[in-house]
Amino acid sequence: MAVYTEVSDEDLETFVAEYDIGDVQSCKGIAEGVENSNYLLSTERGNFILTLYEKRVDPADLPFFLGLMDHLAAKDFPCPTPIHGRDGKALRHLCGKPAALISFLSGLWPKRVAPEHCKGVGGAAAKMHIAADGFKLTRKNGLDRATWQGLFLQTKERANEIETGLAAKIEAELNFLDNNWPAKLPSGIIHADLFPDNVFFHHNDLSGVIDFYFACNGSFAYEIAICLNAWCFEDDGGFNVTKAANLIDGYNAVRPLTPAEIAALPLLARGSALRFLLTRLYDLLNHPEGALVNPKDPLEYLKKLKFHQSAKGPGAYGLGKP
Amino acid sequence: MAVYTEVSDEDLETFVAEYDIGDVQSCKGIAEGVENSNYLLSTERGNFILTLYEKRVDPADLPFFLGLMDHLAAKDFPCPTPIHGRDGKALRHLCGKPAALISFLSGLWPKRVAPEHCKGVGGAAAKMHIAADGFKLTRKNGLDRATWQGLFLQTKERANEIETGLAAKIEAELNFLDNNWPAKLPSGIIHADLFPDNVFFHHNDLSGVIDFYFACNGSFAYEIAICLNAWCFEDDGGFNVTKAANLIDGYNAVRPLTPAEIAALPLLARGSALRFLLTRLYDLLNHPEGALVNPKDPLEYLKKLKFHQSAKGPGAYGLGKP
Repeated sequence: MAVYTEVSDEDLETFVAEYDIGDVQSCKGIAEGVENSNYLLSTERGNFILTLYEKRVDPADLPFFLGLMDHLAAKDFPCPTPIHGRDGKALRHLCGKPAALISFLSGLWPKRVAPEHCKGVGGAAAKMHIAADGFKLTRKNGLDRATWQGLFLQTKERANEIETGLAAKIEAELNFLDNNWPAKLPSGIIHADLFPDNVFFHHNDLSGVIDFYFACNGSFAYEIAICLNAWCFEDDGGFNVTKAANLIDGYNAVRPLTPAEIAALPLLARGSALRFLLTRLYDLLNHPEGALVNPKDPLEYLKKLKFHQSAKGPGAYGLGKP
Repeated sequence: MAVYTEVSDEDLETFVAEYDIGDVQSCKGIAEGVENSNYLLSTERGNFILTLYEKRVDPADLPFFLGLMDHLAAKDFPCPTPIHGRDGKALRHLCGKPAALISFLSGLWPKRVAPEHCKGVGGAAAKMHIAADGFKLTRKNGLDRATWQGLFLQTKERANEIETGLAAKIEAELNFLDNNWPAKLPSGIIHADLFPDNVFFHHNDLSGVIDFYFACNGSFAYEIAICLNAWCFEDDGGFNVTKAANLIDGYNAVRPLTPAEIAALPLLARGSALRFLLTRLYDLLNHPEGALVNPKDPLEYLKKLKFHQSAKGPGAYGLGKP
C-alpha cells in the first residue's frame, strides 16, 4: 500500500507519448503492492497500471518478470500484459526508475476467502505451471532455502524481542528442514507469492493473477505449500481442511500432483511457513521510522508453522489415500 | 494517501446493488485524500469514486458536502456529482461508516504549478463562489479564527520542540490578527481547501475541483488568501508574484474583487498561513505511531507567514493600483 514516487505531469506525458494509448485522462496512485509504486492510468483507450520499480526489485530481473507475463498472456493465462511502446519496448524509465505499463485486469481480490476461491487459485497455479513451460529465461528464487540461514543470522539476536524463545524455535526448524528437505521434485516456473491480494475474482470465478515480481524457478509443490499457508488458515489461526482440499482438487484437475509431491507437501508447508516467518521478522526488526507500510506480523507464520509441525502427514491436508 | 477501511466483496456488492451502475469490475484503494478512504470503483458503466468517511469527518456535515456538490454540478460547475441510488439517496453506510459514490472526474492535479494553473484556479474559485449562491444549507468553518486560540493552547507547550521561539511567534501573530482582522467582507460558500491536489487539469485547462470536505461559509477573499499560500510559493520558499497576479486575474475576470477585499488580502494571507501552521503543528505533535500518513511540515507555513508579515500591502501580491 504505497506510492513512493510522485510523477510530474510533464514526465508522465512524455512517458505515455511512447505508447499508442491516446491522451492521459487521469492517473491515481493506488494503495496496492508493497514493493513498487503503482498508478491507475486512464487514457482515451482505457485503464492501465503504471508501475515504477522501487529499490526492492532488482532491475536485472525485470526482463524476466515482463517476459514471463508476455509469455503467459500469449498462452491465454489470465495475467496483466505488458504494453509495448512504439519502439517495441515494454521496459523504460520514469523519474529515474525502471517503469512499465501493463494492462488493467478486472476483478476483486477476495478479502474473505471461500472454498471456491481456493479451488480457483489451485487451478490457476497449475495452469500457470503448464503455461510457463517453454519460457526461455530463468530466475533463481531469491528467498529459497539457501537464504534462510542468512536471514536467521540477521534476526536471531533480536528475535526474542518479538517472542521469548523464538530464535531457538527457528534454529531447530532450520536444522530439521536441512536434514529432511525432499529430493528433487517436478519443477519449472512458479509465482511464489500467490496470496489472496494477488488473485482477482468476479464473484467466485477467477479473473486473473497479478504481481509476478517474486516469480522464479522452483518446485511446483512448493507453490502449493505457499498457497496452503496463504489461503487455508482462518483469522483465528485454525486450518480449514475444506479449503485445502479445494485448493488441491483445483490443482489436480489441471495438473495431477505426483505421489512424491503429495508426500513432500507437509514438509514444504513447514519450509514455506518458515520463509514468511523469517522475512516478516526481518522486515519488522528493520522497519524504518515513518514508513508508509505497516509491517506484517511474523508470529502469524509461527502459528502456521506449529500446525505443520504437528501434522501427521498428507492426511492432515485432506490429501493422500482416502 | 490512505485506505483505512477494507471493504469485503460481499459488502461492496450489496452497496453497489443499491445503484443503477451495473456490475463491479474492480475496486482499488487510491492513495489520495488524507481524511477519508477512497476507492476507484470500475463498473460496467464506467469509473466512480467510492468514499468512506472516516472519523475526521462529522457525519452531520455530509448532507452539506454532498448537497453542495449536487448544487454546484447542477450549475455546471466542474466537480464530482454524488450518485444517487434507486431510493434517491446519495449518502448511505458501508462497513459501518457513512459512504457515498461520486462521479469520476478526469484530469491530473499539477505536481509543478505553472502560472496558467493559478489563473485556472482563480477563475474556478470565483465561479464556485457565484455558483454556490442559492444553496440552502450553511456550515460554519470548523477552523476559523475563533478556533486558532484553542489550537494554540493545545500546542504551545510543545511548539518549541519544533522550532525555538515558535510559541511566542504564534502568540504574537494571534494577538496581531485579533487587533487587525478586517470587518465583514463579501461572503458565501468557500471551498476552503483549494490546494493543487484538489484541482485537476488537462494540460493547462482546468477540468475540475474535488474534495469539498472543508467547504463552509466564509469570506470570498479568505479563499484567495488560502490559494495565495497554496499555489504561489516556490519549493525554495520564494513568493512568485507572477503566479499571484495570475491567480487574482483569473478570479477578477469572473468576479471582480472589491477594494475592501483587495485591501484585506495581506492580512487574510497572514491568517490563512497561521491556520495551516497551527493545524500542521497540531497534527505533527499528535502524530500516532505507525500512521499511514506522514505529517506535513508546519514550518513551511511559518516561512509563508513571515513573507506576509513583511509584505507592505497589496502591491506585494501584484495587486492594488498599477
